[in-house]
Amino acid sequence: MLPIVQIVHRPGILDLGWGHPDLALLPAAALQRATATVLERYGASALTYGAERGPGPLIEWICARLAHTDARAPDPVDVVITAGASQALDLLCTLCTSPGDTVIVESPTYHLAVRILRDRPLELVGVPSDADGVDIDALEIVLARLAQRGKRARMLYCVPTHHNPTGSCMSLERRRALAAVAAAYGILLVEDDVYRELSYDAPAPPSVWSVAPPGAVVRIGSFSKSLAPGLRLGYLTADASLAQRLIGSGLLDSGGGLNPFVGLTVAEVGAAGDFDATVARLRAAYRERRDALAHGLRDYLPPGCRFTAPGGGFFQWVELPEGVDAGELLPRAEQAGVSYLPGSRFYLDAPRRNTLRLAFSLYPPQQLVEAARRLGKAIDDHIRFINGYVTD
Amino acid sequence: MLPIVQIVHRPGILDLGWGHPDLALLPAAALQRATATVLERYGASALTYGAERGPGPLIEWICARLAHTDARAPDPVDVVITAGASQALDLLCTLCTSPGDTVIVESPTYHLAVRILRDRPLELVGVPSDADGVDIDALEIVLARLAQRGKRARMLYCVPTHHNPTGSCMSLERRRALAAVAAAYGILLVEDDVYRELSYDAPAPPSVWSVAPPGAVVRIGSFSKSLAPGLRLGYLTADASLAQRLIGSGLLDSGGGLNPFVGLTVAEVGAAGDFDATVARLRAAYRERRDALAHGLRDYLPPGCRFTAPGGGFFQWVELPEGVDAGELLPRAEQAGVSYLPGSRFYLDAPRRNTLRLAFSLYPPQQLVEAARRLGKAIDDHIRFINGYVTD
Repeated sequence: MLPIVQIVHRPGILDLGWGHPDLALLPAAALQRATATVLERYGASALTYGAERGPGPLIEWICARLAHTDARAPDPVDVVITAGASQALDLLCTLCTSPGDTVIVESPTYHLAVRILRDRPLELVGVPSDADGVDIDALEIVLARLAQRGKRARMLYCVPTHHNPTGSCMSLERRRALAAVAAAYGILLVEDDVYRELSYDAPAPPSVWSVAPPGAVVRIGSFSKSLAPGLRLGYLTADASLAQRLIGSGLLDSGGGLNPFVGLTVAEVGAAGDFDATVARLRAAYRERRDALAHGLRDYLPPGCRFTAPGGGFFQWVELPEGVDAGELLPRAEQAGVSYLPGSRFYLDAPRRNTLRLAFSLYPPQQLVEAARRLGKAIDDHIRFINGYVTD
Repeated sequence: MLPIVQIVHRPGILDLGWGHPDLALLPAAALQRATATVLERYGASALTYGAERGPGPLIEWICARLAHTDARAPDPVDVVITAGASQALDLLCTLCTSPGDTVIVESPTYHLAVRILRDRPLELVGVPSDADGVDIDALEIVLARLAQRGKRARMLYCVPTHHNPTGSCMSLERRRALAAVAAAYGILLVEDDVYRELSYDAPAPPSVWSVAPPGAVVRIGSFSKSLAPGLRLGYLTADASLAQRLIGSGLLDSGGGLNPFVGLTVAEVGAAGDFDATVARLRAAYRERRDALAHGLRDYLPPGCRFTAPGGGFFQWVELPEGVDAGELLPRAEQAGVSYLPGSRFYLDAPRRNTLRLAFSLYPPQQLVEAARRLGKAIDDHIRFINGYVTD
């Protein structure tokens, strides 16, 4: 039997490597109602070639939603519906970069965005971040070095809100500074904003898009985290001229937009009140999971491990004591029944090998506590091993 | 109000420029049943990150279908589910071409495929076709000229079956010859096969993919013509190694496949027997439309116009008398209440300006006859005008 889903379960292992949602949290019933309503209301109009920008009702709903969840609402002409955040990044690469262009990414950053960029003839350069986000001084040094080589950066990809993998949230001051640098250097800043709706302690900060000069930023949004990833639906907010360029592409003209039937369905989920209900449910569930994992880590990780519980998103970043390599720890952890992604996966270069990423999205609270217990034991054992107290 | 659909209706004009389906023919009820069944049967598994290759049940159904409708069934490992034919071409451009590569297209060819290719740093070269398909001698001359410049073609895009825009169908002999040339020169032949199910007089001929040496051809299929374009679902058949490269891309890994919820829905349409029923209904309806348009054209076009009714697909190609420019005719035709796409849109270079493309997919038979009557009158008037008998 060929698989349906991407995840591969390994018996006996609590695998916190997958940044996937718990199936129990996905709104199957709401989507069943919405698909039925869309096909009743619009009939075959929901099934033919769609408007290139995306379905009108969805665009209007997104504009209204962002008026509540962001510091500035887009105009409909600023919006393009996409087939998910990854596809949006892919489209921006096709239409806004040229071969040999330099693209800057935070390091660490979302590793699969790097894979999408690496599928192109682009040069990638990393800039470090601190707890407030992209290190602006380091960024300016990178830009100056590029200038010395007669190059300039075309694009900068970052995850300012509930970062993947670190969970950090860029400060408002840093957002403004980053937007100013992007505008000054003519860099298109691609803001991956897929975790905006999953803020657990306070509303998400204003997007970089909302505080930036017009044309400096494209913000990529998604319904993968707030509704369901299998829908493959997202959107972007840009300025009207860039949105028009995307809409005028061969792909959107030939296809009649990107995923119009699903787009109308999600608009109906919103209109029916099911988006609000789903997001409220997801926030409560993921908040509880974040807290359970943090408690478990506090209880079970040995001294010298450091972590800060994130304000939103799916991920808990952990720093092991210096000299403990998360990649070398992994086999021992899996033997103890827990897995994760080593932090080195997320660095463009100079990885901090004593880091790892835990996703708290997939498992209920009790299992997250158990995962923390197993991880703590594996780290303990591993530290004893590298200190020579025991042999394998 | 922002639009939902791509098409823009102009009052009083029968617009045969749109290669869109009649809404009355789209299977809204079957899709309503299928979405409900999928969410009942698979629940949230239909809504999470999908297998990179696409949902297993859809891949198995496609393999079984092609065993009936093509000369060779693919293995599941040869198949990748895509978000429509346009997205498949886009993905192949990203992963199988390099900047500056030469891509060969038939001329005339599908104009929006050319737009997708032109959104890339590729060099496009046209080769002419005759009634049997791509002119192999002309192709070899093009390849020899490229070789003289130290270049070789990376990719060749063609529509062998029920061609857009000409409606022609490549002979089996020509398919074999084309596959042999592609294999000999190491060119990836991209076969746009989206009209296979819409064959009105006889089964579609074997795909080029099915008669080619392994690795020479990628065939792009779609559910846009056989079910509904708003689903944005298609597939490709390649060889296993190329399929694996596509599946290993950042886009498919990050997204969890392309459109998995819709993919499972279409698999259910197939399993429920609704695909067979829909295709049978579409074939009967479009056959009747093709015939009605052909009758109308025979009755109303002035002497010197030439056309051959196609064996499938959406399009009727018309040659006007030499010296009559379809672009110049267009305003007069629209004044008479009919529109079309001038043939020049479909040529890469050296357009034959006395050609035009009529889509018979959108209107019922009587309106197609009326469209032919209006077109005939417009051509008559235009010929009298250019012969100096009347002035505007």
